[in-house]
Amino acid sequence: MGKRNLQVCMTPRLFDLYADQKSIVVVVDVLRATSSMCVAFEQGVKEMIPVSTVEEALEYRNGGRDYILAAERNGKPVKSFDFGNSPQTYLDMDVKGRTVVMTTTNGTKTINIAKVKHDVAIGSFLNLDAISEWLIGQERDVIVLCAGWKDLFNMEDTLFAGALVDLLITSEFYSFDCDAAQASKALWDSAKSDLYKFLENSSHRKRLANLNIDSDVQFCLQLNQTQIIPILVGDKLVPSNQC
Amino acid sequence: MGKRNLQVCMTPRLFDLYADQKSIVVVVDVLRATSSMCVAFEQGVKEMIPVSTVEEALEYRNGGRDYILAAERNGKPVKSFDFGNSPQTYLDMDVKGRTVVMTTTNGTKTINIAKVKHDVAIGSFLNLDAISEWLIGQERDVIVLCAGWKDLFNMEDTLFAGALVDLLITSEFYSFDCDAAQASKALWDSAKSDLYKFLENSSHRKRLANLNIDSDVQFCLQLNQTQIIPILVGDKLVPSNQC
Repeated sequence: MGKRNLQVCMTPRLFDLYADQKSIVVVVDVLRATSSMCVAFEQGVKEMIPVSTVEEALEYRNGGRDYILAAERNGKPVKSFDFGNSPQTYLDMDVKGRTVVMTTTNGTKTINIAKVKHDVAIGSFLNLDAISEWLIGQERDVIVLCAGWKDLFNMEDTLFAGALVDLLITSEFYSFDCDAAQASKALWDSAKSDLYKFLENSSHRKRLANLNIDSDVQFCLQLNQTQIIPILVGDKLVPSNQC
Repeated sequence: MGKRNLQVCMTPRLFDLYADQKSIVVVVDVLRATSSMCVAFEQGVKEMIPVSTVEEALEYRNGGRDYILAAERNGKPVKSFDFGNSPQTYLDMDVKGRTVVMTTTNGTKTINIAKVKHDVAIGSFLNLDAISEWLIGQERDVIVLCAGWKDLFNMEDTLFAGALVDLLITSEFYSFDCDAAQASKALWDSAKSDLYKFLENSSHRKRLANLNIDSDVQFCLQLNQTQIIPILVGDKLVPSNQC
């Protein structure tokens, strides 16, 4: 195959302009859903079921199986759920072999938009190099889909997109007519020497700072902490090496 | 009034997320509709009527008045129209006192989306300082609305947005929760030393290069060539100092 097309879609609201039914879609919600997914599998979670609504998640409670239920809305854990969407929660608990049902403000909704007509993989700074190498091996076009914040552009997901463009564009990918890919890479170039500082004035850091969870931001901005590539098989996320 | 809110909306597809019925909306289509509007008024055009469709523009032909009809689709002038959307056309003709009816792929459509519930002004690099000073004097919140390309993000309009953020944010504006404003400014910071080179790989430059109108790109990237601020009054654009 010749050079492969690499595009960046900055918010799910624009996804229909990119959807082509053949590209792999990398869903990104750095703060914090897709970072949590990478950590969960690294800690031994068997599978994750991303659902769009709190009600859907609650239906699993009475399903007879011992699910972990994780839900976040507007940056906060939802009352009566086991977990919110903090990745560090998975470090404190024994989650080996468990199934997690997760719903978040932006990340799980975006996965469910992408999955209708595309194969889906999960990206975060924590698995940056790993997903880059995995994508190179897939011989497919790629769309990086930023979850954003309630359909708005956000900085941290775009920076991840830029980091991925930076890694892929030098190999067998091109990005002929996607200004969003070029802008993402330019932003990454400006930010990469100190991601945390670059995001100082971002809306999401301010939002999380108000919730006293700034340590999650620092955690999610670490590069290359895992080789895990979560991918969607049917309605469940599983690590790609277990398919 | 206290600090005023400054937001950047990267494509008209997202505008409903920003619309608040009170901000002034600065519509930006650097290549080339809003640059042409600035030049047209600088050359003495009396008023411009932005319409969304070629059919609407053609209705003016038989209206009994001596309109200049300007239409562009996909970067090319539309057959049988007087003008396309090249700003340099207005330099070659005597247009003093004339009325221009204009329709373009992105710019005029975006104006007509914004005008439904907002006051509209027209920005381009050609009137950057002038519109910045005019906005400071208006004592209103501001939304910079990039026309983009067929609802996609584009680089040149975002760079203009960043240039305007750069000028405004140091005075009485803030941009508390708009990551798009911060990203635009960061891109402008990366690009401003050589805009033309920064846009070398942009989709629009490639598109225009194929049409042999690269000189329009150079023309539209000149800063501060006019003091004109086109604003929308009813359905017509006029220079602000003639209201």
